[in-house]
Amino acid sequence: MQRIDGGICAVAGVRAAGVRQGKYGLTLIEASGAAAGMFTTNKVRAAPLDITAEHLAGGHLDGVIANSGCANAYTGPRGREDALAMTQLLAGFLKTDEKKIAVASTGVIGRYMDMEIIARLFDEAKTHLRSDGEASLEAERAIMTTDTRTKEVAIEHRGMRVAGIVKGSGMIEPNMATMLCFLYTDADFPAQVLQDSLKDAVKESFNMLTVDGDTSTNDTVLLTATGKAKGIVEDFREALRFVCVDLARQMARDGEGASKYFETVVTGARSELDARLAAKAVARSSLVKTAVYGADPNWGRIICAVGYSGAEMDPEKITLGLEGESPAGSSLKVSLVEKGHIVDGVLDQAREIMRGDSIIINIDLGLGNAGARGFGCDLTHEYVNVNANYTT
Amino acid sequence: MQRIDGGICAVAGVRAAGVRQGKYGLTLIEASGAAAGMFTTNKVRAAPLDITAEHLAGGHLDGVIANSGCANAYTGPRGREDALAMTQLLAGFLKTDEKKIAVASTGVIGRYMDMEIIARLFDEAKTHLRSDGEASLEAERAIMTTDTRTKEVAIEHRGMRVAGIVKGSGMIEPNMATMLCFLYTDADFPAQVLQDSLKDAVKESFNMLTVDGDTSTNDTVLLTATGKAKGIVEDFREALRFVCVDLARQMARDGEGASKYFETVVTGARSELDARLAAKAVARSSLVKTAVYGADPNWGRIICAVGYSGAEMDPEKITLGLEGESPAGSSLKVSLVEKGHIVDGVLDQAREIMRGDSIIINIDLGLGNAGARGFGCDLTHEYVNVNANYTT
Repeated sequence: MQRIDGGICAVAGVRAAGVRQGKYGLTLIEASGAAAGMFTTNKVRAAPLDITAEHLAGGHLDGVIANSGCANAYTGPRGREDALAMTQLLAGFLKTDEKKIAVASTGVIGRYMDMEIIARLFDEAKTHLRSDGEASLEAERAIMTTDTRTKEVAIEHRGMRVAGIVKGSGMIEPNMATMLCFLYTDADFPAQVLQDSLKDAVKESFNMLTVDGDTSTNDTVLLTATGKAKGIVEDFREALRFVCVDLARQMARDGEGASKYFETVVTGARSELDARLAAKAVARSSLVKTAVYGADPNWGRIICAVGYSGAEMDPEKITLGLEGESPAGSSLKVSLVEKGHIVDGVLDQAREIMRGDSIIINIDLGLGNAGARGFGCDLTHEYVNVNANYTT
Repeated sequence: MQRIDGGICAVAGVRAAGVRQGKYGLTLIEASGAAAGMFTTNKVRAAPLDITAEHLAGGHLDGVIANSGCANAYTGPRGREDALAMTQLLAGFLKTDEKKIAVASTGVIGRYMDMEIIARLFDEAKTHLRSDGEASLEAERAIMTTDTRTKEVAIEHRGMRVAGIVKGSGMIEPNMATMLCFLYTDADFPAQVLQDSLKDAVKESFNMLTVDGDTSTNDTVLLTATGKAKGIVEDFREALRFVCVDLARQMARDGEGASKYFETVVTGARSELDARLAAKAVARSSLVKTAVYGADPNWGRIICAVGYSGAEMDPEKITLGLEGESPAGSSLKVSLVEKGHIVDGVLDQAREIMRGDSIIINIDLGLGNAGARGFGCDLTHEYVNVNANYTT
C-alpha cells in the first residue's frame, strides 16, 4: 500500500476542475467506467440523490457534477428538474447521455438552486478540466462548506490505483455539512463488484465516523473504475478499504469545530454488531467529546457510554485504556480499568495522553472475539460557533 | 389541578433535610408508605440503584438518603457495602429496617464514597429533619451538581396532593449530572398501582426529555404514598403525570449550559412510537439545538432529524411551524412548511420566534392520529464549559 501524489487525478482517465463564487461552488469530474454509489439513509433524500441513484442503475458513469451553496433538498419537483438540468449541462459538454452523469449537492436545506449561478460556474469550470494534482484540489475546494482543509488520498497497491476526495464530516451520522465522497480507481471490475466492495469499505470507515449524530439528507459516496489497470478483487477491496478509512480519519480531524481527533478501538465483543454499537456510542457521546476537548480523563463517561450502547457487556469484565503521544512525540499508553477493577495512580499519565491532539481509547469487553473501530472528534466552543449561525 | 407551596413537604407525612460540605451534599427524606421506583436502563448501574431496587421489592419505604459528590458507580463490592451502610444510617435513626430505606447518589463515576464525610453530614442533617417549604428546598440543594436552580412542584387535585423534587437533566437520556427525582403523594394506593402510574407518567415526561443523549448510570425516580388522603386512581394518575411533565420542563430549562428551552410537539403520526421517535430525534439533534441557541430558523435541520428518526414519514405530507413569544410577551405563531410546500416570506417572523427563550416546534406528519411531546434545550458555549472540565 503505497501513498502517491495527485489526488483523484493520479488515476488514469480522471480529469477534474472546480470554481467558486461566494457560497456557491461547482466541481466537475470526468471519468468513464463502471460505477457504484451509496447514499444517505435519511428518509428525506435530496433531489440530486434520486437522480444519481436512477442514473447509477445503468452501472456506468462518464462524469460527476457537484455543487456547494445549496443542498437542493426538500425542494419538490423543481428540485428534481434542477438536478436533472445539472446532469444535462455536463452531458452536453462531454457529448454523452445525461443518464451517465451523477449529480451531488451540499448546503442549506429547503432552498431552490440558483441555476443562473450554476450555469455561469459551469461555463468557467469546463475550461479548467485537466488531470493534475492541483485540479484534484480545486475540485475539493469547490464543494467545501464548513470544511477547514482539503481531504484527499491516493494509493497504489499491487498494480492498481485507488484515490478519493471528500468533503464534510460523516456518513450515516454526519453533520449537516453533508458528506460527498468521490472515489476513483483504474482497476477493471464490473459495477456489482464495485458496489459490494464499496459497501464493505463504507461500513468500516464512513459508517463508523460520527461528528454530531445527525444524518444529512445529501450524503453521497460514488466510485468509478476507469478500467485501465488489472488486478485481483481481494487486493482492490483492501486498497479501497484503506482509502475510505484514511478519508474517514481525515474527516474526523476536520469535524466541525474539532480541535482533537480520537479513535475508539473495541475488542473482545460477543458480536461484530456489539463491537460497532459500543465503538460508535463512545465516539458519539457528547460527554466523552467534551472530556476530550477539556483533556479530562473522565473514563467513567466512556464506560457509561458502553453501558447504554445496546452492546452486550459486563462491567466486571471490561478493560479500558488510553493511547497517545507526548508533546515530544513519544508514544504513551495507560491502563485505567483491568477487568472491572480501577487501576490506581494513573490519572496523571491519563491526563497527559488526553492533552494530545490524537487519542486512542481501547475498550476490551472481555466477552468474545469481535472488534470494531470508531472515529470521532471533540465537541468544542467552535462547534457551537459554527452551527449556531449557519443559515444567516 | 391547583399548584400549592411547600414542595414535597406539602404532602402530609413528609419531613426533609439537606446539608452540604464542598462537593458533597446529603439529603434525608422521611416518609412512610407504599412505594415504587424506576431506574436507569444503562447496563452499568450504580451500587445504590441495586440496593434500592432490592429494598423496593417489599413495596414500602420509610425514607430516602441521597448524596451528591460521588456517584458510587463502578465501585464493585465496596460500592454495595457503602450504599448499604447509608441505608443503615437512616434506618438506625428512624428506628426501622434498612430494607425500608432507599439510597441514591450522583457525582463522579469510578470513585469510592468518602464515608467519613457521609457520616458527618448525616449527623448534621438528621437534626434538621422537618416539614416546611424551606426543608424541601434544602433537600433539593444538597443533591444539586451542575444544576443552576432548584426544581420542585406541588399540586392538589381532587382531594389528593402530589409533589416532587428533582435534580439533573433527564432520564433515559440525561447528562451525566444524573437525574434523581423523589415524588410524594398523600394518596392511598398499593405499590403496584403506584408502579403502574409511575411508569405511565415517566414515559410521557422524563423519557421525552433529552439534554445530550447520554444515559446516566445513576438515574432514579422514587414515589412514596403516605396514604393520608383518599381519591380515585384516574385522578391520581392525572396529577402524577402533571407533576412529572412539570418537573421535566423545569429540567429542560435547567439543562447543562442551557439558555433556551424548546418543546417538540409531534402530531399526525401513524403510531405513538413514531411520534415519540420523531419528537425525541428533533429534541436531541445537536444541529437543532445549536440553531435554537443561535436563533437561526434553520427548519431544514428539523425536517432532517425527523427523516433519520426512524419514524414513518413522507416529506410531502409534513406541516411544520413554530410558536413562541415576542419580547413584549405577545404570542407568535408561524407556519414554515404546509404539506411539504415551503411557505415563502415567513423567515423574519420565524427568526423573531427563535429569539425567544421558550420555543414550540409543531410537526404534523400528516399520516395518522398519534402524537407525542419532547422536551429539550439549546446547545451552548456554556455546555462545553461545564462538561470539558468536570472531574478536575
